[in-house]
Amino acid sequence: MFDAKEFIDNSMKEIKSIVKESRVISACSGGVDSTVTTYLVHKAVGKNLIAVFIDDGLRREGEPEFVVETLKSLDIKTKYVDAKVAFFDALRGKTDAEEKRKAFRDMFYKTLGKAAKEEKIAFIAQGTIKADVIETVKGIKSQHNVLQQIGIDPEVYGYKILEPLRELFKPEVRKVARELGLPKEISERMPFPGPALSLRVLGEVTPEKVAIVRKATEIVEEETKELGTFQNFAVLHNDKATGIKNGARLYGNIITVRIVESEDAVTAKFSRVPYEKLAKISERITKEIPSVVRCLYDVTDKPPSTIEFE
Amino acid sequence: MFDAKEFIDNSMKEIKSIVKESRVISACSGGVDSTVTTYLVHKAVGKNLIAVFIDDGLRREGEPEFVVETLKSLDIKTKYVDAKVAFFDALRGKTDAEEKRKAFRDMFYKTLGKAAKEEKIAFIAQGTIKADVIETVKGIKSQHNVLQQIGIDPEVYGYKILEPLRELFKPEVRKVARELGLPKEISERMPFPGPALSLRVLGEVTPEKVAIVRKATEIVEEETKELGTFQNFAVLHNDKATGIKNGARLYGNIITVRIVESEDAVTAKFSRVPYEKLAKISERITKEIPSVVRCLYDVTDKPPSTIEFE
Repeated sequence: MFDAKEFIDNSMKEIKSIVKESRVISACSGGVDSTVTTYLVHKAVGKNLIAVFIDDGLRREGEPEFVVETLKSLDIKTKYVDAKVAFFDALRGKTDAEEKRKAFRDMFYKTLGKAAKEEKIAFIAQGTIKADVIETVKGIKSQHNVLQQIGIDPEVYGYKILEPLRELFKPEVRKVARELGLPKEISERMPFPGPALSLRVLGEVTPEKVAIVRKATEIVEEETKELGTFQNFAVLHNDKATGIKNGARLYGNIITVRIVESEDAVTAKFSRVPYEKLAKISERITKEIPSVVRCLYDVTDKPPSTIEFE
Repeated sequence: MFDAKEFIDNSMKEIKSIVKESRVISACSGGVDSTVTTYLVHKAVGKNLIAVFIDDGLRREGEPEFVVETLKSLDIKTKYVDAKVAFFDALRGKTDAEEKRKAFRDMFYKTLGKAAKEEKIAFIAQGTIKADVIETVKGIKSQHNVLQQIGIDPEVYGYKILEPLRELFKPEVRKVARELGLPKEISERMPFPGPALSLRVLGEVTPEKVAIVRKATEIVEEETKELGTFQNFAVLHNDKATGIKNGARLYGNIITVRIVESEDAVTAKFSRVPYEKLAKISERITKEIPSVVRCLYDVTDKPPSTIEFE
């Protein structure tokens, strides 16, 4: 049986003994993994930690403000970095899923590296958990927070990596979050991928396409928050389809809704959501987003599909 | 109340009085509209009708053989035209839905025109029904069998058009089919678009992509034949998505399943198919078609979407 309190005590001791009086940077996206990591390190080293929120332009509605405010309310030294233009520049013209992930990852480390240099830090803390390690080793996806395994040597850049959660699965991370007294919006927060909405725009990622999937995501999250499912989101296709808006033909956008049940993200089942709920989501998405004419529901388990589309 | 027997009698008289001793050609795809049209004209003018089955390479599994055999069993003079290479050549490089429809339509009339010339005919019989006329007038889709409204003047080619079903909706066409004693496979046949599987391959149409959607269509039709729904089919996306096959990552194909309830195709509701049925279809498609990693279900009514994707 996993003991969250014991884990926290051991982890803080270990972090202190490794970091000593050095400075640490932690990129916090607001997800449970990176927020628990950030808060654990903060508790261990206090003012020697600086949390960075990198605004890549790919976050959900209201997310940048929420994350920065939450970190400040926890008394964590926090830096907001506006990198929206740089990320969209890096993603321009990329259409292949792995290429997009690599472009995101490279820009993420470039931005983080710049902040690390400015802050004269020696350690980078990362929210890597066990599922990330397993998936990267298997070659299913390259998770952006597993450096060594994908051949990026952080020591080349002069930094050392702290990954206090790398032996934990998601349910254990949530237990640690509760034990740490983090707000419920964090401890019960749905998994959200590092490269954020860039994975949920099939084909090239542009600010216009991100705005469409951001709105669809907001609708899906609003309509499904009572379901208690593992992960609920929207994906914007690059393909288009025929529809009818205001009595005229429109060759418009397609949105897929994905709602899955899972324990640990390693396997998942598509959720048998009541059809009236899906009909409501489909209606809202096609009404509230003028360019969308069609709404699909993903009925594939993992395997053979993954949870995310990219 | 629609009287099918009266319709047949009047229609045959009208066809006879227009056609007299001339020769007529009718392109029969095996759908209820074109087969009823073909059989009506056959009953009116006998040997002066020649039915043509154009094999465009876009038909469902076993369809060319079935249609030709059915026409022959009805004693209709029938010609099989192998135009597969010509159609794939015409579709090559086309990705826009309307462009694809136009390319199909042009090749269809070119092929039919060639057959008409060989057979020295004066009339072309077409299975246009009322929904085709309404949709083309509204500009929602250009149905390939509504010539005059889209600016194609058949008289330029020296032919006249016979459209005996143009005032009928689909349920009335089926009544006529039953009254004519056509086999159940025809009278109760699901609607299937003129441009066939080309509309169900998003993006460029190639023989390889048609083979994938043909297999998926076969699975959907097998699994849903007992549902009694209006139309059931599969669509192959041009977008790809991540999945896992044999333990390794595969950036593979996406199939959408569309099952709708409708009276007349003018409006439609997505069918609330039991989830266990959808799970079975999804499992079969991702297992039996190696390149497919993900299966989606369309949860949009018409409007705002159309029944077909293109």
